[in-house]
Amino acid sequence: MFKEQLNLAWRSRNSLLCVGLDPDLEKLPDSIKGTEPLFTFNREIIDATAPWVCAFKPQIAYYSAVGAEIELVKTINYIKENYPDIPVILDAKRGDIGATASMYAREAFVRYGADAVTVNPYMGGDTLEPFLDYRDRGVFVLCRTSNPGSGDIQTLKTPRGSVATEVARMAVEEWNQNDNVALVVGATYPEQIAEVRRQVGEMPLLIPGIGAQGGDLAQVLESGLDRKGAGLLINASRSIIYAGSGADFAMQAGAEARRLSEEINTLRT
Amino acid sequence: MFKEQLNLAWRSRNSLLCVGLDPDLEKLPDSIKGTEPLFTFNREIIDATAPWVCAFKPQIAYYSAVGAEIELVKTINYIKENYPDIPVILDAKRGDIGATASMYAREAFVRYGADAVTVNPYMGGDTLEPFLDYRDRGVFVLCRTSNPGSGDIQTLKTPRGSVATEVARMAVEEWNQNDNVALVVGATYPEQIAEVRRQVGEMPLLIPGIGAQGGDLAQVLESGLDRKGAGLLINASRSIIYAGSGADFAMQAGAEARRLSEEINTLRT
Repeated sequence: MFKEQLNLAWRSRNSLLCVGLDPDLEKLPDSIKGTEPLFTFNREIIDATAPWVCAFKPQIAYYSAVGAEIELVKTINYIKENYPDIPVILDAKRGDIGATASMYAREAFVRYGADAVTVNPYMGGDTLEPFLDYRDRGVFVLCRTSNPGSGDIQTLKTPRGSVATEVARMAVEEWNQNDNVALVVGATYPEQIAEVRRQVGEMPLLIPGIGAQGGDLAQVLESGLDRKGAGLLINASRSIIYAGSGADFAMQAGAEARRLSEEINTLRT
Repeated sequence: MFKEQLNLAWRSRNSLLCVGLDPDLEKLPDSIKGTEPLFTFNREIIDATAPWVCAFKPQIAYYSAVGAEIELVKTINYIKENYPDIPVILDAKRGDIGATASMYAREAFVRYGADAVTVNPYMGGDTLEPFLDYRDRGVFVLCRTSNPGSGDIQTLKTPRGSVATEVARMAVEEWNQNDNVALVVGATYPEQIAEVRRQVGEMPLLIPGIGAQGGDLAQVLESGLDRKGAGLLINASRSIIYAGSGADFAMQAGAEARRLSEEINTLRT
């Protein structure tokens, strides 16, 4: 079960930090060469940051834009072989009608072997079912995203609150039959994190928007921790993987992951 | 410009029919063999149906679920080489923050060379910009989808109507600066098609849900045609590509595409 895997990672690794593996060919250090630069880069980032994380989150667009699916496969396999207790969340934000959603679930869970996937709820609950039916995998549903325009749809007022609060409500009341649902709520909207936490009890929340996007860590923790002082996956991508650009980039990434994980732990105790 | 390309295809091919290329390995005719079964199947479907269509719409999930990206590349190239006037809409329903959306736009427009792509508006207008910035390509934004659960989010009441009507409003007022926006509205909700048509003037509407999903063609045309008797891409996937399962599957697909295109033309005159 994904939630057990995640709870174990939170406890045994004493970290709420999730590192996003979003390697952009144009931003890689000069020292990264060869035929599989994304995988080579990731492998070093993974080894350097693994001691400080509770999860890794590769963003599929960075691989599919450049035809590097095989490097994504290798990246996930590398984590599974070397750090089998660290869950892998494939960030794909998929969403489509049932027959197609089944194909996307197969992509995430079978082809890539991810432990969890991010999905988009706009098309409705029936389009999430093919993902939810993988009972041992996690499904992170977008609720309130971290970007400036997230209010265009997500904060539209509805009779019972907002679109985002309706998503959180359905996540708890309808979609979580297999206890494998989690939500995505951006660090840039801490008041929304607090509201969602009140709605969903101890459901895990993935929090993007720390680091490059400017979310405030103390506010996130105050708003989002569950009663056990966990319940959050705080994601950082660019601020960690590009912490350094020289030959010591991996060491720099590891140092930044350690710093951020320890800052989170200081703030939550 | 995508809209000019589409207008030309509508007129010169005298068709509103879009054929979805969603090949499922488990449903292919026994006569399809060899190392690239999806491409082999598509090539025959394309040749047989091309005389009756205004567009082709490959659904990317059917390729990515089975690691067949190269067959999707070949499929799109085959259309471009043999039927250069028929636009290709990549059905991908992407949506993500700006940096990632740029990667998805690159996937659709550069890697695959699609003329248009479908996108999901849940994350807001800023996440659509990287797609819209390709001024010569089309961007089909999900508005009201054809599936049974589409009302979970899309028909939530808002102060000015519903979530779907807000999407149509923003499509016209905010996102269409480059005149390259279109909307997706399901055939299964003809009253929504009529409402969206009133909102958006002559913006193209992609209509899934005819055929396997049960939408009513006469109602769709009555609700959705623009003042010129066009403005619609009426999609059918499974009902055409699986019209036959024998060695003559392509002929059957061509016959069904012809029948449907002619039925549409009879109903719209």
